[in-house]
Amino acid sequence: MRRVILLTLVLSVSLITTAQNEDSIFIKRLADEVLTNGKAYSNLHDLTKNIGGRLAGSPQMVKAEQWGQKVLQASGADNVWLQQCMVPHWVRGGKDETIASFMSPSAKKTTKPLYVLALGNSMGTGSKGLSAPVIEVSSFEDLDAKKDLVNGKIVFYNYKFNPTFVSTFNSYGDAVRYRGGGPSQAAKYGAVAIILRSMTHSPDNFPHTGATRYDSAYKKIPAVAVGLQDADWLDEMLSKKTTVTLSMKTNGHFLPDTIGHNVIGELKGSEFPDQYITVGGHLDSWDPAEGAHDDGAGIVQTIEILRALKALHYTPKHTIRFVLFANEENGLRGGTKYAEEANAKNEKHIFALESDAGGFTPRGFGLDMSDELISKVSKWSPLLTPYGAGLLVKGGDGSDIGPLNKLGVPTAGLNPDSQRYFVYHHAPNDVFEAVNKRELELGAINMAALIYLVDKYGL
Amino acid sequence: MRRVILLTLVLSVSLITTAQNEDSIFIKRLADEVLTNGKAYSNLHDLTKNIGGRLAGSPQMVKAEQWGQKVLQASGADNVWLQQCMVPHWVRGGKDETIASFMSPSAKKTTKPLYVLALGNSMGTGSKGLSAPVIEVSSFEDLDAKKDLVNGKIVFYNYKFNPTFVSTFNSYGDAVRYRGGGPSQAAKYGAVAIILRSMTHSPDNFPHTGATRYDSAYKKIPAVAVGLQDADWLDEMLSKKTTVTLSMKTNGHFLPDTIGHNVIGELKGSEFPDQYITVGGHLDSWDPAEGAHDDGAGIVQTIEILRALKALHYTPKHTIRFVLFANEENGLRGGTKYAEEANAKNEKHIFALESDAGGFTPRGFGLDMSDELISKVSKWSPLLTPYGAGLLVKGGDGSDIGPLNKLGVPTAGLNPDSQRYFVYHHAPNDVFEAVNKRELELGAINMAALIYLVDKYGL
Repeated sequence: MRRVILLTLVLSVSLITTAQNEDSIFIKRLADEVLTNGKAYSNLHDLTKNIGGRLAGSPQMVKAEQWGQKVLQASGADNVWLQQCMVPHWVRGGKDETIASFMSPSAKKTTKPLYVLALGNSMGTGSKGLSAPVIEVSSFEDLDAKKDLVNGKIVFYNYKFNPTFVSTFNSYGDAVRYRGGGPSQAAKYGAVAIILRSMTHSPDNFPHTGATRYDSAYKKIPAVAVGLQDADWLDEMLSKKTTVTLSMKTNGHFLPDTIGHNVIGELKGSEFPDQYITVGGHLDSWDPAEGAHDDGAGIVQTIEILRALKALHYTPKHTIRFVLFANEENGLRGGTKYAEEANAKNEKHIFALESDAGGFTPRGFGLDMSDELISKVSKWSPLLTPYGAGLLVKGGDGSDIGPLNKLGVPTAGLNPDSQRYFVYHHAPNDVFEAVNKRELELGAINMAALIYLVDKYGL
Repeated sequence: MRRVILLTLVLSVSLITTAQNEDSIFIKRLADEVLTNGKAYSNLHDLTKNIGGRLAGSPQMVKAEQWGQKVLQASGADNVWLQQCMVPHWVRGGKDETIASFMSPSAKKTTKPLYVLALGNSMGTGSKGLSAPVIEVSSFEDLDAKKDLVNGKIVFYNYKFNPTFVSTFNSYGDAVRYRGGGPSQAAKYGAVAIILRSMTHSPDNFPHTGATRYDSAYKKIPAVAVGLQDADWLDEMLSKKTTVTLSMKTNGHFLPDTIGHNVIGELKGSEFPDQYITVGGHLDSWDPAEGAHDDGAGIVQTIEILRALKALHYTPKHTIRFVLFANEENGLRGGTKYAEEANAKNEKHIFALESDAGGFTPRGFGLDMSDELISKVSKWSPLLTPYGAGLLVKGGDGSDIGPLNKLGVPTAGLNPDSQRYFVYHHAPNDVFEAVNKRELELGAINMAALIYLVDKYGL
């Protein structure tokens, strides 16, 4: 262990004014409260261990809404209500299976189960399953080049996460089109199913699910994501010209749309009660995990901000809404509903903030607002830097508040460190144990600080 | 998962000059090399899984030296050698045990094993063990106040890690005096042993060992660290005035000093071959774990810098030394020897850098050098910020290069994010699986960038 010395900041980005001094004192009090008495971690334990995965429309999601309502009340909201919206209701319908069959070098028929998960929103194979030889493609261009070989086959998309992006969200942004558009592109050429290299560069073998979307012009074929170790094995087999047949059984299907809810807690503003600041995360999560980082973290951070502000007897000038959104993963119906109602009621929303990039140590905020406002918010960077989130960048708010942003509301997203996010994202290992208590708390502290600054100075 | 948008840096700290542009291109090449072909993670797997814990003087440490020599050679060092030094040879001598006995509320004699580890350098109880009632103190002041009650007892130091420091190294700096001085302070008042709340604020129950030091004026009494869940249980029992007796068995003892080695690889300088830049970590680690974060990470990052510079065919101006130090944990004999020999040979050392704060995502560097040099190095911050380590602060280099710093050499330490460090530090869970591949690699990238800049521009 290295020598311990009290660290002194060398780069002080701007002069500290008296107002900033007052602000830094209040933010320190917020930080002390969260780091000493914080409930985000124990709330996350409750949500993940007692409820678990909670896809929109599922019984777990109903339990999660009740839980959210109760915890917002206990954390001191002036009032808490459910905002109803219709949500899609996709169910996995059982265990996803894919078994590879091939001839071993000694010409013996051999099988190997692959670790897969059906993509969200995908159609299952039906109870009989399907079986077909697999053809590998490295990209859509490669698929086009091989289009005459695809008919009747299972297409294996083996497009790799680019490791050279420092922000792993850029690797995701680059690769995720294969999850979204891969099934229909393959169906166009007569493929019977697809198997997709998971959206990760983690060295483990967990498959990563996530939403796909079918193009209505083509057949809706089954689609699974496969863990990277199995993807690499499949790639190696196929590169040796071994014929590999996959037997796939998945059961995904849609039930009729059902009723879901945004869970909303409110702290009334003293000066501008009709002007709103929204902070939130999404309560729904993919079914095969506990939804700890995605987005249990954002949920418990949102609630923690309320708890900490109340613990310090803070009365906001503006009304602050703490929103647990209903349906981010496969429909965005929660965020859409929230913005629709805000618009219909002609509510004045001055700012919205989301945490939906994991409960990792905070590095900054992504700002979706005018350059003028970005420059205003950037002046607060020295107040956030001691707590980790001093790096303010343009772009990257959060899906659920995107519809508000489209109405012209300035929005922002917490940017935690991204290196571990795609180790867990939509995979069975996104569990409570993958979250560090203090990293989670520091995210809440920086969010609370930003909410406080916007409330005090406006935007 | 939040919306994916390519992030643009809003705060650009200084204008980018042409030279900086060249530098940013070279640093990007370094980053791409490490993120694409990096060997730090697989080297860490080798070191932790095939060798494991490696305390100075142990057979594992001899294996680790041989491993280090081989890997430095394979990574392209011009020459590799062992620098001999005498090292302390403390051995744990077996399993550490502590069993609590007390009367249950129904007056039934009850026992509970506590999860403990003897402190490094501590004297064991002997094979018979010892047994005594425990007395809790919250601080040295509390111990002084209770001094008349201590004779014949086991002192339970229950001083807590302060959660309100954002850098956990400050919590450690605040609490670690109880590990270092606790046994002798208690022995002064006649205590027969101590049990110490572990140096962590992690919610788990792993005990954290680490060096203690006896004051020769007092008896060398046995000393163990206990996990936090057990510490809290003990505190609760004692707060209810329950008498708790601890039966302790530990076997620690010193063998005669033995021979150890710093393992040194060198890349010859083309312009100033007699001027040295040192980069390193420490090869030794505590015995009950794999020494993954402390300091396997620093070791494989050091080797990765060499590998990446060679892969890019970089010829340094100055001679760069890659040093795997022999004995940081319980003696600092490796770093001391290295500085002594540098001094005796009148070597000109222009800079030394250490990584010994874990393989976590990098945030910056701690600089131990004149304010003038700090201001020079701070100008490089915009080149490091895209890779995470743009935050340059005064103080906090690294133990092993401390002796060089005392000779007037400017030194620095990598500052990774500190939130998870004391979850693993000196505890049985400091294993390979606790390290994230990309976080580890980003540390190496920022270190390589700083080494490159110092080599190019001098200090």
